[in-house]
Amino acid sequence: MTKSHFDAIRADVENELKRVFDARCDIPQKLLESMKYSVFAGGKRLRPILVVAAAEAVGGNRKAALPTAAALEMIHTYTLIHDDLPAMDNDDMRRGMPTNHKKFGEATAILAGDGLLTLAFEVMAEQPAGGDVSPSVLLRVIRTVAKAVGAEGTVGGQEVDMEYEGKQGDLKILEYIHAHKTGTMITAAVVSGGLLGGAGDDDIRALGEYGHKVGHAFQVFDDILDVVGDAKEMGKNVGGDSKKQKTTYPALMGLEESKKFGHRLVEEAIGALSSIKGETRYLKELAEYVAKRTN
Amino acid sequence: MTKSHFDAIRADVENELKRVFDARCDIPQKLLESMKYSVFAGGKRLRPILVVAAAEAVGGNRKAALPTAAALEMIHTYTLIHDDLPAMDNDDMRRGMPTNHKKFGEATAILAGDGLLTLAFEVMAEQPAGGDVSPSVLLRVIRTVAKAVGAEGTVGGQEVDMEYEGKQGDLKILEYIHAHKTGTMITAAVVSGGLLGGAGDDDIRALGEYGHKVGHAFQVFDDILDVVGDAKEMGKNVGGDSKKQKTTYPALMGLEESKKFGHRLVEEAIGALSSIKGETRYLKELAEYVAKRTN
Repeated sequence: MTKSHFDAIRADVENELKRVFDARCDIPQKLLESMKYSVFAGGKRLRPILVVAAAEAVGGNRKAALPTAAALEMIHTYTLIHDDLPAMDNDDMRRGMPTNHKKFGEATAILAGDGLLTLAFEVMAEQPAGGDVSPSVLLRVIRTVAKAVGAEGTVGGQEVDMEYEGKQGDLKILEYIHAHKTGTMITAAVVSGGLLGGAGDDDIRALGEYGHKVGHAFQVFDDILDVVGDAKEMGKNVGGDSKKQKTTYPALMGLEESKKFGHRLVEEAIGALSSIKGETRYLKELAEYVAKRTN
Repeated sequence: MTKSHFDAIRADVENELKRVFDARCDIPQKLLESMKYSVFAGGKRLRPILVVAAAEAVGGNRKAALPTAAALEMIHTYTLIHDDLPAMDNDDMRRGMPTNHKKFGEATAILAGDGLLTLAFEVMAEQPAGGDVSPSVLLRVIRTVAKAVGAEGTVGGQEVDMEYEGKQGDLKILEYIHAHKTGTMITAAVVSGGLLGGAGDDDIRALGEYGHKVGHAFQVFDDILDVVGDAKEMGKNVGGDSKKQKTTYPALMGLEESKKFGHRLVEEAIGALSSIKGETRYLKELAEYVAKRTN
């Protein structure tokens, strides 16, 4: 992985996130702290990096992609805060730190999530500074992201995940949950980046296919990590999924088969990029990273 | 109040809300039921009616305003679902029916709220069928609504409300909570309607002032109703605010002074409309309705 390139994107995303919060001076103190606590908790920034890398792969400029990149990270963070709540996964630790509701209380955690989700849409509806994006493209990005993270996407995936907690689901249920909880948001990140970068229909289709495969691979390796990962590196309790009797890939198809399946998805993701004429090297490296990450 | 006119708007809003849900076929069954349960629970539809009435007052067409009207009602519903949660106001009844989490469980209620908020933004980003609205106006509507209902608005108001629960706040805190919990969303409804109706800057300013006063009056009379209202008509437990030791207008300035204050705000709201050249009769009636409602 070309570290310095991704570090540079990550630095731009951090600055964009700081800018977003600096521009909001009417958020009550405790709520602001709670929102920032989870946003700046050391996430990998995979989704915003995918937005930027996709925009640049189709020849677009980074500045046009940064607000939506930051928005995707805020949305990802809100899903983590709400998923950790006592009524949901009831997790005390996240990235080696107390979860939001453990630190700020349940009411503030719910509201911090609501606030981040809403702020994300406000930011996506702004014309990016230094990037000239047509208003209809911004609207399409908003629709794409909203559909991907709402009741037909991430929120729906979490609902079905909750309904099957403690029950033994089959592969079809597992795929549904993963495709909706994780896949749709990753695909939306890549497609949004493409749209903001000015991609045509063919490239958007290719990016959608890439995003779909990467999202799927991400979840397969996430399940694998939960079995074999090191608790310290993960920053949360390893084996949590099997303790809660969640359906996982290793549980359903075995560890070795899961690894093979994940690697095949990464190969297919990379294959989907072949029709794109721009510089797709970084998107390829991101797909490979998903298979190599240790936390 | 010209009943048939508002009934006609309300019928259009109901149809628009039905259309929105009919067009979403990938929402998991229980989540969909939970979202619809609260959206179709017999709300007054005040916010969507304000959107439509404002659009029509500046000469705009109703079809252009309906998606955002429906979106505002979905957002209002999401705030009710989340506010009722055990970690927040812990209410069991709403509009004479079990609250969402009592009926569907806490996890689904949180997700139904998240889903409604997200769906609202998806709907606002769509070009209204039969209404020709420029994409930049739609983006401005999204920014206006997001700012009004997010951490600087409704969500922030609920946070401060929670922080002061059981404590005796002063008038400044009360006004902050009300302005943010209720006022900003009502103002956003009126301003959005104006924008979608093609209003110029002067009319938008006048509508903003009207919305601000109406929102303020709404909350004053809401506090009054909580003291004098009839439990059956309200469909929830009356006196709930004083039981929870919430700061209210009657508690701070007495019942009669609160009524006078509320009526003065309604007069000021109506006064703010004087510079608008269109048919403002229905907006005036809506302001008067706020002072007369019994539930």
